[in-house]
Amino acid sequence: MYSKIPLAQTLVSLCIAKGINHVVISPGSRNAPLTLSFSQHPKIQAYSIVDERCAAFFALGMAQQLCKPVAVICTSGSAVLNYYPAIAEAYYSNIPVVVISADRPEYLIDVGDGQTIRQKHIFKNHINYEANLKQDITHKRTILSETHQLSAEMEQELQQRVQSYNEAEINQALNAAVEKNGPVHINAPFDEPLYEMLPEPTVFPKVQSLVLEEEIDHEKITKAAAIWSNSARKMVLVGTLPPHTISKKYLEILANDPSVLVFTETTSNLRDDKFFNKIDQMILPIEKNEAMLDEFQPEILLTLGGMIVSKKVKAILRKRQPAHHWHIHENRVYDTFFCLEHFFKINPNHFFELFFAQTKPIESSYKSFWNAIKKERQQKHEVYLQQAQFTDLKAFEAILASLPPSLILHLGNSSTVRYAQLFEIDSSIELFCNRGTSGIDGSTSTAIGTSVVAEKQTLLITGDLSFLYDSNALWNNYIPKNFRIILVNNNGGGIFRILPGNKNTENFDTYFETIHPHTGKQLAEMYHFEYLTATDEMSLQKALQTFYDVSKQPKILEVFTPRIENDGALIDYFKFFNEKK
Amino acid sequence: MYSKIPLAQTLVSLCIAKGINHVVISPGSRNAPLTLSFSQHPKIQAYSIVDERCAAFFALGMAQQLCKPVAVICTSGSAVLNYYPAIAEAYYSNIPVVVISADRPEYLIDVGDGQTIRQKHIFKNHINYEANLKQDITHKRTILSETHQLSAEMEQELQQRVQSYNEAEINQALNAAVEKNGPVHINAPFDEPLYEMLPEPTVFPKVQSLVLEEEIDHEKITKAAAIWSNSARKMVLVGTLPPHTISKKYLEILANDPSVLVFTETTSNLRDDKFFNKIDQMILPIEKNEAMLDEFQPEILLTLGGMIVSKKVKAILRKRQPAHHWHIHENRVYDTFFCLEHFFKINPNHFFELFFAQTKPIESSYKSFWNAIKKERQQKHEVYLQQAQFTDLKAFEAILASLPPSLILHLGNSSTVRYAQLFEIDSSIELFCNRGTSGIDGSTSTAIGTSVVAEKQTLLITGDLSFLYDSNALWNNYIPKNFRIILVNNNGGGIFRILPGNKNTENFDTYFETIHPHTGKQLAEMYHFEYLTATDEMSLQKALQTFYDVSKQPKILEVFTPRIENDGALIDYFKFFNEKK
Repeated sequence: MYSKIPLAQTLVSLCIAKGINHVVISPGSRNAPLTLSFSQHPKIQAYSIVDERCAAFFALGMAQQLCKPVAVICTSGSAVLNYYPAIAEAYYSNIPVVVISADRPEYLIDVGDGQTIRQKHIFKNHINYEANLKQDITHKRTILSETHQLSAEMEQELQQRVQSYNEAEINQALNAAVEKNGPVHINAPFDEPLYEMLPEPTVFPKVQSLVLEEEIDHEKITKAAAIWSNSARKMVLVGTLPPHTISKKYLEILANDPSVLVFTETTSNLRDDKFFNKIDQMILPIEKNEAMLDEFQPEILLTLGGMIVSKKVKAILRKRQPAHHWHIHENRVYDTFFCLEHFFKINPNHFFELFFAQTKPIESSYKSFWNAIKKERQQKHEVYLQQAQFTDLKAFEAILASLPPSLILHLGNSSTVRYAQLFEIDSSIELFCNRGTSGIDGSTSTAIGTSVVAEKQTLLITGDLSFLYDSNALWNNYIPKNFRIILVNNNGGGIFRILPGNKNTENFDTYFETIHPHTGKQLAEMYHFEYLTATDEMSLQKALQTFYDVSKQPKILEVFTPRIENDGALIDYFKFFNEKK
Repeated sequence: MYSKIPLAQTLVSLCIAKGINHVVISPGSRNAPLTLSFSQHPKIQAYSIVDERCAAFFALGMAQQLCKPVAVICTSGSAVLNYYPAIAEAYYSNIPVVVISADRPEYLIDVGDGQTIRQKHIFKNHINYEANLKQDITHKRTILSETHQLSAEMEQELQQRVQSYNEAEINQALNAAVEKNGPVHINAPFDEPLYEMLPEPTVFPKVQSLVLEEEIDHEKITKAAAIWSNSARKMVLVGTLPPHTISKKYLEILANDPSVLVFTETTSNLRDDKFFNKIDQMILPIEKNEAMLDEFQPEILLTLGGMIVSKKVKAILRKRQPAHHWHIHENRVYDTFFCLEHFFKINPNHFFELFFAQTKPIESSYKSFWNAIKKERQQKHEVYLQQAQFTDLKAFEAILASLPPSLILHLGNSSTVRYAQLFEIDSSIELFCNRGTSGIDGSTSTAIGTSVVAEKQTLLITGDLSFLYDSNALWNNYIPKNFRIILVNNNGGGIFRILPGNKNTENFDTYFETIHPHTGKQLAEMYHFEYLTATDEMSLQKALQTFYDVSKQPKILEVFTPRIENDGALIDYFKFFNEKK
């Protein structure tokens, strides 16, 4: 079945031609032409989510997992504004979410109609392409046709122009989503009647194919390789990266080079015994030790991936800048350390192929020096944790040790991702976290989006504020039974206790830590999750034993940790590395 | 206590000077200078709300009630994007919400730091003023001072310029919130350290006073009065209006004029026996009756207030346009009927004072004709309802009849406000509804904001989708015990059953009506509301008897209505008016 409105047909036809087959629809009347067309199309898997904020994060989770565009569709008015948090996340995390907002026709905007805002350009700051489509001439309401009488011929000609314009814009938008690997916004005005359908299509839009071109500066790579070959102190720092991005052969080269330290963040999905996988554990104890910082400072810093979680590594490298900072990424570069020398806009594997063909080995003790420290840190880490009381830190140790192999792990922001950085995580685990904007606003929805399209089991580890913030995520009919949430509830924003605020005052409790007595119990009941709790190490270990097993419902395991003691334990943990044995 | 950061001091000082004493704060670190300053200030009542979407609607409810600006304060990153639905509502509903978003300093934007987006201009389409403030020169982090060494004198001079710029911009923004009666956005960059406080202020910002001027075109008013005096068919149509906006003496004149029909919407807060308070009941039965539409069409249409809820009156007056349409409003005009002749940008009372001094009475049967029909409609309304089964319609009858006098009533959007239009509501009741964008996204938060500052009891009547959408509204420590919610649960978006979709198909149920099995039970338990239910007329009447009484907790009364039958009953109701007795 096809909408009678040519623009709706065009949108559906081009989305499918461009390989979109997941669309998330929020209810509305203005978007009825799209809802009816997409939801009944055999090539489309449609999802209905009422809260648009959740809908967009849900689509984000799917697009991230599928590595291809997913569409979100909403009605006119404030609906589309609720997409914005997820769109900003998609923009900075390079995830192709295609927003299709139904709109009123131009003549009904700002005349006092309901559910009508100025939808054009609303995502302007954080969008890769905006297609502001035109209303079909042949589908205008009587009131306008009466005032602007057109001959049939003229109408035909104008309609043809509109059709061409819309086809070109939709093609460009959908191509940009892939080419720039990020969100695009298509705004589509529809006039009534909205619900009429046809058995056959009336328009046959042309597909403009996408040609992806890399800008390769061979000379720059050759020069970089020469500098690399002559440096005995090189650091590779890897931020957020999708799993399986870098070929094993290049990872091997890096791992075996004595002049290279590879620092990988938890979100990098690169875990190897020869890498330094726990940044903060390595550098927090030395942050005020100038002699050790001398030993740490690289000559060359090569960065891969997106955002860096570790505040400390950013702070140290901003003060101890490398002579050369090069970033390799297909789309995006940040001058994170205020000393970027080159941006290689190229697929990292292609870069390494060209680069390593020209590099030569060099003797160095850079890595062996830090390897010894790494070993010592690991021992101290174990010693400390063996004697530690049950707090967030111990809870994360137990949780991360419990993960079955080949799980997909989604981490909440703030404390969660930072605690996870302190532990080794099995290399078979694929890890995601909304680090584009590092918001707490949509982690649960994103994880659920992931779980719906992933072939593997998905676990979300989240804090309580983040979980409560996105509570509507659970209002979702598509959650697979094997989806799991571990909710670490420390009754507020534990991260604030680690920041320099004046804690344990009423003012701090209320406006910073924002303490609360709520739990996941009622939400679990409401949305049919199995609900388990743990309050200490023993109950946590016990709950984890069968937590990932096949079940009739998805599960929430809520782990209660001691609010007042969590921050002290973390501070002690870092202090311990500097203590004499 | 004063923040060490001059910009934070300036903001707090000017907000207070401009009469802001309610601020809604969401937790964060970047906004710590503001949080610490505002929350400890004796002239400020601060509120802590975690979910920024709710926080902004909560502030909207307060500002609407107080008729003065209320500030919302958040940290950097995606936080501020969650304000957008409420900001668009504030823009179209003329409510002065002052957004103060903390931001990173310019040099930390787009370099890969966490919780960082491009915050400037994000509300561009729906904001009355944007103040993009500058970072204090004397408060820049070491990293920049090192690279840009300034002499103490130069630093002083630059800081003075920044201070003057910021003072002027903040003054302008706060004045615009009042002058344009709508939202403004102040973006304030802060560098670390963020938590340092001083016992005494270091800056003393100047207050620029606001001079409100009306543009009065006396000649235009005189001409309009002459036309008015000669017309026997005049209609006054009143959209959303705050209570007590129009003086009684002018209402009396309109009410007693035989040539004037006053159509008031429920949201107009104008209820009088001599007015036509139930628009849809009057005009739905005649929408296809050309002879009656002839009788209905006015020569002059004078509109007051904001948005019109009734789709039918808009549709009819767009087809049956008056010869003259004049709109009277202090700020805003819409050409809702595509025939606007004059916009009188003036306080309506001032307009009427000048206008009625020049008008003369004219003989007319316009009102008496429609009065007879109104009487007949009222009788039929009563007859129909007496024999009607329990559906949404009957539920609304019972609920609206139960309202104690002097209540504040907040209505959810979609079905709720439309059903409420069908009944008389006591004139002592003050009524609000988010009709600016007519979204379902923040009704509960808005009503709670209202309840917190209102001296009277506040009741929210809401549908289930709207209630679930804004479920985080209940995550609020300030809800007064006398706050009440009546949740009319018809298991989905009942409005869609009335629209032209192909109902009772699986596709319709999923993507349009979005049926669901959820109730308010668990949310009531989680957030400590007393929870009552009703499933038929008798249980509803019984529950309502003591529902508004003093209680230890706020209450939710959930009324379950028969999903499948609601729309049929409403259609029958309108059909009944055209049936022979």
